[in-house]
Amino acid sequence: MFVVKVGGAEGIDLDSFSRDLKNYVGKCVVVHGGSGETNRISELLDHPPKMVTSPSGYTSRFTDRETLEIFTMVYAGKVNKLLVEKLQAEGINAVGLSGIDGRIFEGTRKSSVRIVENGKKKVLHGDYTGRVEKVNSSLISLLMENGYIPVLTPPAISYDGEAMNVDGDRAAAMLASALGAEKLLLLSNVPGLLKNPEDEGSLIDTIPKAKIESFTEYAKGRMKKKILGTKEALDNGVKEVVIGDARSETPITDALNGKGTCIK
Amino acid sequence: MFVVKVGGAEGIDLDSFSRDLKNYVGKCVVVHGGSGETNRISELLDHPPKMVTSPSGYTSRFTDRETLEIFTMVYAGKVNKLLVEKLQAEGINAVGLSGIDGRIFEGTRKSSVRIVENGKKKVLHGDYTGRVEKVNSSLISLLMENGYIPVLTPPAISYDGEAMNVDGDRAAAMLASALGAEKLLLLSNVPGLLKNPEDEGSLIDTIPKAKIESFTEYAKGRMKKKILGTKEALDNGVKEVVIGDARSETPITDALNGKGTCIK
Repeated sequence: MFVVKVGGAEGIDLDSFSRDLKNYVGKCVVVHGGSGETNRISELLDHPPKMVTSPSGYTSRFTDRETLEIFTMVYAGKVNKLLVEKLQAEGINAVGLSGIDGRIFEGTRKSSVRIVENGKKKVLHGDYTGRVEKVNSSLISLLMENGYIPVLTPPAISYDGEAMNVDGDRAAAMLASALGAEKLLLLSNVPGLLKNPEDEGSLIDTIPKAKIESFTEYAKGRMKKKILGTKEALDNGVKEVVIGDARSETPITDALNGKGTCIK
Repeated sequence: MFVVKVGGAEGIDLDSFSRDLKNYVGKCVVVHGGSGETNRISELLDHPPKMVTSPSGYTSRFTDRETLEIFTMVYAGKVNKLLVEKLQAEGINAVGLSGIDGRIFEGTRKSSVRIVENGKKKVLHGDYTGRVEKVNSSLISLLMENGYIPVLTPPAISYDGEAMNVDGDRAAAMLASALGAEKLLLLSNVPGLLKNPEDEGSLIDTIPKAKIESFTEYAKGRMKKKILGTKEALDNGVKEVVIGDARSETPITDALNGKGTCIK
């Protein structure tokens, strides 16, 4: 049993992903992103995305209430349902759910965020972000036992019942641990962890679990959270994480065969 | 056991609805609309709604593929998830699903639609609309048996696996029949069926099932589909339909107590 997270950035072909998924019905749970489409719709709705950087160098989306609603609409509405539609057209009995539904992804909301802007530290209030601390795996198992493939997406829900933006890679890591999955596949629009982000040929193909800290220096931007999620999954019982390419004809099969960066 | 459909037009207070729903956990399934918000977002995205009228006088949304995607995003993303969030904050373990998920609402797509425009008959192609003919009630029952309240929304899915716009009132009617529900409540921003749509005091409070045909003349606009859904529900085993007001403090309790137009 494995968890596969497919990113929402440009260049990712969900048709190939959906066709490949047919080979793994009953054996996996899907998590997806939607950042590219959320940025596009946010611009059109005249509420452009505001990306912020933490003092430790992690980038994230500053999520005021309006952003949260756009984020929810795009991730849980457009991206989730159009992926479920594709899967259903392939004959896969998919059921799409957000982390709010049945409190699948639950955690603490952080309503303010410390950021660095033009070299200065600042605190922004009114943020609807958080971290998944608890997974309602019983609902996922119930669906799987009855022949459905769960297709999950942020947002998550706070203990107080507020929707909140959470990182999809780290949510997938928590999910993989909670379900006792053997593998976690994190697929996006890069071949894996690269020594040089500008050079797709500089792929790091294997990292022993014990040495992951020494490779974090290569992770920039979105990749930093993937490495963090990888560490969290491995620390919580997942045996292997593959950071792979979602842009191939058979992205899931490739990653299961070890194509990408394997950390174990 | 009953099905309650709450409309998506302006003036409807989902906070009161959510509070009232706490009294009926385990006894009902929710269906909702989202037409008002879909119109608003469609305008902002520069793809304004196109409402069309059939030769028999029914109005509907002409749904090209772009409209379908906006419709799906708003109904299944924004309206559905923000309602589930409200319910979760009230301590109700809601799970939001569209008709695509697990093929809950399935039927035939009608890709062209006959309309009347400026007195002339026309056929429009590329429509993604249809009618729910089959309900996957096993998924709904599975969730209910395990303590979840299902919160359902269009779109539905065609037999060929395409998402399609369906009327929410008629989908709720099919659902009520499939679940063997005793009652169907259709709540919107009017007190019920009015003799004069301009006068909220002209409520028709009871209609015997056998006489419903003779009351259809009073139904205008959206109300026509509610009457059609009412007829379909009663013809398929539902004992009572109440067309009630979603704008009160306790809209569900009121309708269960017979406030509105009761057809039985």
